[in-house]
This record gives sequence, C-alpha cells and structure tokens, in this order.
Amino acid sequence: MRTIKLTLAYDGTAYAGWQRQLNLPTIQQTIEDALAELCGEQRIVLFGSGRTDAGVHARGQVASFSTTCSLPVSVFQRALNVGLPRDIAVLSAEEEAPHFHAQKHAIRKRYRYEIHNSRTADVFRRKAAWHYCWGKLDVEAMQEAARHWLGKHDFRTFESRWPQRRSSVRTVFEIECRRLAAPDHKRIAFEVEADGFLYNMVRTMVGTLVEVGRGRKPAEWAAKVLAVGDRREAGMKVPAHGLFLMHVTYGEIFVPQRVEE
Amino acid sequence: MRTIKLTLAYDGTAYAGWQRQLNLPTIQQTIEDALAELCGEQRIVLFGSGRTDAGVHARGQVASFSTTCSLPVSVFQRALNVGLPRDIAVLSAEEEAPHFHAQKHAIRKRYRYEIHNSRTADVFRRKAAWHYCWGKLDVEAMQEAARHWLGKHDFRTFESRWPQRRSSVRTVFEIECRRLAAPDHKRIAFEVEADGFLYNMVRTMVGTLVEVGRGRKPAEWAAKVLAVGDRREAGMKVPAHGLFLMHVTYGEIFVPQRVEE
Repeated sequence: MRTIKLTLAYDGTAYAGWQRQLNLPTIQQTIEDALAELCGEQRIVLFGSGRTDAGVHARGQVASFSTTCSLPVSVFQRALNVGLPRDIAVLSAEEEAPHFHAQKHAIRKRYRYEIHNSRTADVFRRKAAWHYCWGKLDVEAMQEAARHWLGKHDFRTFESRWPQRRSSVRTVFEIECRRLAAPDHKRIAFEVEADGFLYNMVRTMVGTLVEVGRGRKPAEWAAKVLAVGDRREAGMKVPAHGLFLMHVTYGEIFVPQRVEE
Repeated sequence: MRTIKLTLAYDGTAYAGWQRQLNLPTIQQTIEDALAELCGEQRIVLFGSGRTDAGVHARGQVASFSTTCSLPVSVFQRALNVGLPRDIAVLSAEEEAPHFHAQKHAIRKRYRYEIHNSRTADVFRRKAAWHYCWGKLDVEAMQEAARHWLGKHDFRTFESRWPQRRSSVRTVFEIECRRLAAPDHKRIAFEVEADGFLYNMVRTMVGTLVEVGRGRKPAEWAAKVLAVGDRREAGMKVPAHGLFLMHVTYGEIFVPQRVEE
C-alpha cells in the first residue's frame, strides 16, 4: 500500500460540502469515485484535512488516500484533472509516508473570508464573496478587534453548537482583516490561521467583526465576547459562500500528533 | 419622453449574448422585461452600445432606453437590481438628453481579454478567463507584437466574416498585454481601446498574439498579418468566456456622430 497526498482547489457552490452523503453531491464522493476508477479499485477512501460545509470553497484543501495501484504519482494530477468536473482541481499529488493522514497530521489551517463591500453586487464574485451592501465597513476597527483573538484561548463563543468535543481551546497564530488595494478596494479579506477551528468559528468571527465594522460596537467588545464564552453574545454567522480553506500545514508525521479537529 | 442611460455588468455565462432572440435567454431581453414591468409599459426597447456574443461578459456595458414613466432616476438602479437575476447588475442609471443613443453616440470602447496561464485550471475563473495550459506565454513578446496594431488601420484580417460593412478601418488608441503581479502572476490581461471593433476582432487579435507568446512566430509577424488583410493569416479565435466589455466612452451628443458598429 502507498499513501498519496492531494492538494485541492474547489468551487463549493454546487456541492453539499466535503463529506460524502447519501443522494447529495459532495467533494469527497466526487474525488473518491474518480480515484476508484483511475486506480481500478472498488472503493477508495479519501481523508480530508477537515470537512468544509456546503457552499464553502477551497484553494488549498489537503486530502490523503491509500492505494495498491502502481501508477506514477505524476500521473495522478493530470489524470484526475481530466476526469473531475471543472469546479474541482488537483493542484498537486505527492507520495507520502504510508501512515500519513491528512486529518490527523494537520497542525495548522488557514481560512480566508471575502466580503464585497459595495452598494452594487459584483456579478463575477457573487458565489465567492459575501455582498455587504449596507454601508462602508471600517476595516481598521475590524482589524483592531480581531487582534484580541490572537493566541491561545477558549473559542467556544464562536462555536455554532456544543458537540462532545474534548476542548474548545485553540491557538490563533495569525489574524488579519484588510481592504484590498485599488482597483479591488471594495474587497475585504479576513484571514486567520490556527491549530484548529471549531464548527462555524470563522464565519461567526466575521459576523462579530462586522458589528464592529458597521460601528455598532467598539473594537474592545471583541475581547469581551471571547471572554464570556456564550455564543449568543457573538455576531451572526455570515454566509458560507465567502469562505475559503486556503492552506493546511503538516508537521513531522513520525511523532504522535494531536488528533482533535 | 425621457431617456435613461444604464451602465451594466454581467456574467454572460448563462446567456445567448446581448441581443434579443426567440426562445433563448439574452441580456437585452432580460433587462427589457424588467424595465417594462418597472415602468408599467408594454414594451421597452433597450439599445446597447453594441452586441456582446454568447458567453462574453461586461463590466461597463452601456445601454439606453426611452420611457414615459416618471420614476426618479435614482430609483431605477435599486429597483432593477432587486428584480434582475444575480448575474446582471446595474452599476448606474443617469438621466440623458432625449436623443441620446447608447449605440450611435459611442465613440470609444474598451475590451479586456483574460488568460489563465497555468498547467492547472483556476476553478474560480473557469468561466471568466481562458485557460491556456500548454506552456508559459511570453507576455513581453505579445506586448511587442500588439503595439504594431496601434493607430488607424484596416483591421479586416481580424474580422470573422465579411459582412456589408462600409469600412473595416478602425483606430486603436490603446493596446496592452501584461502579466499581473504576484499572487496573480498566472493571469494575463490584454486590453484594447478603439473607436469601434469588427466582428470577433478582439478574440482573433488574442489568438494571433498567442502564436507569438508561445514562440511560433516573432513579434514582427503581427504587423505582416495586419497588412495582408486576410483572415486566414491570423491566429485562432479564442473562446468567448475570457472577453469583457470594460468601458464605453461618449462624446458630445449634439453633433452628428458616426453610426457604424
């Protein structure tokens, strides 16, 4: 058996998310089916670094699978890109150590959320950015607010529900909210990198920042919301179609790793 | 009667082009229908600055119509954007002189053609850029070639067929082919501004430049192709979905204007 790591981009618009479901098109199933055909195996199981929700996109999702087939690894990328639908692309395929696991060995993930901040919609980004048309957002205040979330904290405030999770403590290594330079000055990009994310955490963070950006709350409020640990105190969960999984980082896979998220 | 000028953006993917057709969805018909409903008139005729082909996009198409309705002009943009499908947006609505005509009074148009130059497709631009995956294009050579087309020339070489047109002489005021800065360095943008365009002229220009960019022809060949006046000497017509109508310029509308194109 060999293990192969795929780096993937996808436009999530047409899919019910990453995870295989009965009777709904998903990213995982679409790629698994293409892999099974390519490898001539009955079923291939593809492990993603994490699940992305319906409508969420990826520019750097990572997934791994094991196979007995002997195709050169260089063939996988090209053959898959020919066979897959046009809204999924394999950016790279690499041979990995046999016990590599895209979910268990991930140590950092980076997400991006895009807001189109203009009275008029951008027809070309309508499925890849959230259209915020109710006034100009104060991005400097949003950035000031977001900085309160840097570091190791209990982020349960931003979690949509409360599953049987061992811990809601995560470490945010980088967090940034900025307005792009002209001619893209109507685009606001929020990026956050952490050792893991709770369910809906990024989208709820963005909804919270928007309360600051629209002037309803001061930047310091972001620290209070985090400290209180109560989902009802945070902002709304913004729509899925502005969210992109950008990058997944892997550590040394020969030592035991944390297995949450 | 009053005349109103609309500036429009649209994602042309789902449409059979600008011009109203029987049994096919078009941009013109979609907006005309929304206008008729908004103005409470049986039929409104919308004149575009020109027709865009099936799959071609716009970021600055201009169109005009006459109406007897007394809605404030500020209402048109908002009301239309609520009623129109999400792939068409009204960027502005302005009151114009009664005899203003978006086609007849246009004196310059600017088009852009986008190439995604990478082995792997960009899933988010698959309908808004042509994917050129057969090697890295030499954009400096393409720019050198394009400069031969600046100025007033007979452009019949780049015209798809030879209709009953009075003249195929046009003046190109600006022409540029460039690779965008990182992280967008896989995007190549070709922009051209002229007093008018022949049928398929921009797409055939791009196909000709690609022959230079891939190293099959030297940059000077572009001058020869133009001079020979024979469509068979030019490059291929590249796909519609990379093309954007960016801007239309209007002159003083009280003096007689050229009416071609």
